[in-house]
Amino acid sequence: MSLTVPALSASGPDAPLEFTTVTRRDVGPHDVLIAIAYTGICHTDIALLRNHWMEGLFPMVPGHEITGVVAEVGSEVTRHAVGDRVGVGCYVDSCRECPNCLDGEEQYCTKGEVITYGHLDYSGEVTYGGYSTHIVVDEHYVVRIPDGLALDAAAPLLCAGITMYSPLKHWKAGPGRKVAIVGMGGLGHLGVRLAHGLGAEVTVLSQTLSKQDDGLRFGADHYAATADPATFTDLAGTFDLIINTVSAAAGLNQYLSLLRKDGVLVLAGVTGQPEPVLGVLLAARQVLTSTKNGSIRDTQEMLDFCAAHGITAQIETIAADEVGAALDRLEKGDVRYRFVIDVSTFPR
Amino acid sequence: MSLTVPALSASGPDAPLEFTTVTRRDVGPHDVLIAIAYTGICHTDIALLRNHWMEGLFPMVPGHEITGVVAEVGSEVTRHAVGDRVGVGCYVDSCRECPNCLDGEEQYCTKGEVITYGHLDYSGEVTYGGYSTHIVVDEHYVVRIPDGLALDAAAPLLCAGITMYSPLKHWKAGPGRKVAIVGMGGLGHLGVRLAHGLGAEVTVLSQTLSKQDDGLRFGADHYAATADPATFTDLAGTFDLIINTVSAAAGLNQYLSLLRKDGVLVLAGVTGQPEPVLGVLLAARQVLTSTKNGSIRDTQEMLDFCAAHGITAQIETIAADEVGAALDRLEKGDVRYRFVIDVSTFPR
Repeated sequence: MSLTVPALSASGPDAPLEFTTVTRRDVGPHDVLIAIAYTGICHTDIALLRNHWMEGLFPMVPGHEITGVVAEVGSEVTRHAVGDRVGVGCYVDSCRECPNCLDGEEQYCTKGEVITYGHLDYSGEVTYGGYSTHIVVDEHYVVRIPDGLALDAAAPLLCAGITMYSPLKHWKAGPGRKVAIVGMGGLGHLGVRLAHGLGAEVTVLSQTLSKQDDGLRFGADHYAATADPATFTDLAGTFDLIINTVSAAAGLNQYLSLLRKDGVLVLAGVTGQPEPVLGVLLAARQVLTSTKNGSIRDTQEMLDFCAAHGITAQIETIAADEVGAALDRLEKGDVRYRFVIDVSTFPR
Repeated sequence: MSLTVPALSASGPDAPLEFTTVTRRDVGPHDVLIAIAYTGICHTDIALLRNHWMEGLFPMVPGHEITGVVAEVGSEVTRHAVGDRVGVGCYVDSCRECPNCLDGEEQYCTKGEVITYGHLDYSGEVTYGGYSTHIVVDEHYVVRIPDGLALDAAAPLLCAGITMYSPLKHWKAGPGRKVAIVGMGGLGHLGVRLAHGLGAEVTVLSQTLSKQDDGLRFGADHYAATADPATFTDLAGTFDLIINTVSAAAGLNQYLSLLRKDGVLVLAGVTGQPEPVLGVLLAARQVLTSTKNGSIRDTQEMLDFCAAHGITAQIETIAADEVGAALDRLEKGDVRYRFVIDVSTFPR
């Protein structure tokens, strides 16, 4: 039995989001039906809704920062039970047999993982995301939300949080390591909280000092303005790890110059074409790399870590009929620091 | 007492190398006087002699792949004794107090290590390299040539060898790891021998198959032509580590596309301005980095490893009066695979 459920959907890249319904697939033996409580609004939602990166699949129901409660489970499900608090992030399936899936890093599935919305699943059906009241997801791609985490402020952890945690873990942020977070938006503010929680010495590099008070409150030890050229001379050769959350390509060489020997610059938000980077890379074995959300295993680990350290996103909760306006505000950077949709406000 | 010794010197970037003499400093308490036996000819010699990278310090006596025998030691020298077989590579001093020197990686000295030739040492004197009969070097920057290694074929290990060994070690080339070496020149042929010796599965990526027989003899398991577009489809997503020894900037994105998840592309020979690399980096956390010769510690380790595995360079030995012609041949890529000057042929 399939399920028809309320959703916010855009009919094309120039169309507004409108209330409609979508059909969720039958709950299969390995599936979990989730009654969605909250969905975070990610920059990706704007990019995909408005064809900034590619031609999208429309109608499109965005949303990949999903929290809720299990409403039904398939006959073979073992990981989750009705009533469990759970979350879903950026993808809802992967091939499970390529080297990267076998390595437990489904986000790099060589067949191509199934993106939570605006994508074709392996049976050829379009995926619809979390701007909706319910979703059906294979249990393997559903994580547990620990009791200590509120479902609203935890929602952004499912994309923004894991996108920061994954490179912080992979590149060994921790005590004795100097970490810089470039950008103090949805990703950046969680990067500061997570890096601080991991024990690193954290510096925020933001265009101006306008969010300095927040940054220090989130756990930053230092805060510097990238608009001030002195920042790049004062901090040259300083950092073990810099995570750039800004979707602009410029300045890569400047950031590379802030790394010490074997320092790593991770691109977490760049979407444009960056400048060539050779000269600075050659200085002292600096590393340029990127990151892409994170594995299911790391997502669960991150949620448990956040519960232990009291880390969630700083959010503005909005009603379903405010999503269009919120997207416009997000595009202007006018949010501190993540919009979350209260899904109980969907018309039923 | 300072020493005036024969040398091959260029008076300027357009001038030929001519026989002359240079004065070596007094043998200080920590110094070693080396009677040079052989000096390899490195691509860098051409680049510095001809101002390809920067304005050089002339007169210039090139040469940083030096082997010889200790002729005299200072009063405090403990590491070397008269008669020892020794080598000198790309640098002859460093600050010894910056974090990188203290870390034992003098090649990344933040004060700037003292390059073996064409550079000012910390007392303001110009350094002269190994195209000469004798050199005076602080004992810390002199390595031991194990008995099993011939001084002629070992000379190129001091730059080309360590330049390959350092990234192979740092990025964990070994059993179960797939390593590609781009380019089959002076660096590349040693990269193949070293990677094979370390137990990795080695592929050579060369423009054509013209050196395939040599490559397989050096220990490559596979050999592919980069001029053939099928190479890049057949080998997509294959390698854990690619070391690019080619001094051309083009093709970085092609090489990045050959890396598997977490694969590393090391630039060991690129000097030009490469294309932007973002798109491919984002695929699966691939790493772009560079390398710069190697530490004294790793150079000694590499020499011991080479002695244990019977690894040296394949060389063409030339007389001192053939160096000009050899540089011209090297510039055309006409050498298999390294010229080495027999320093006994210097006019005395």
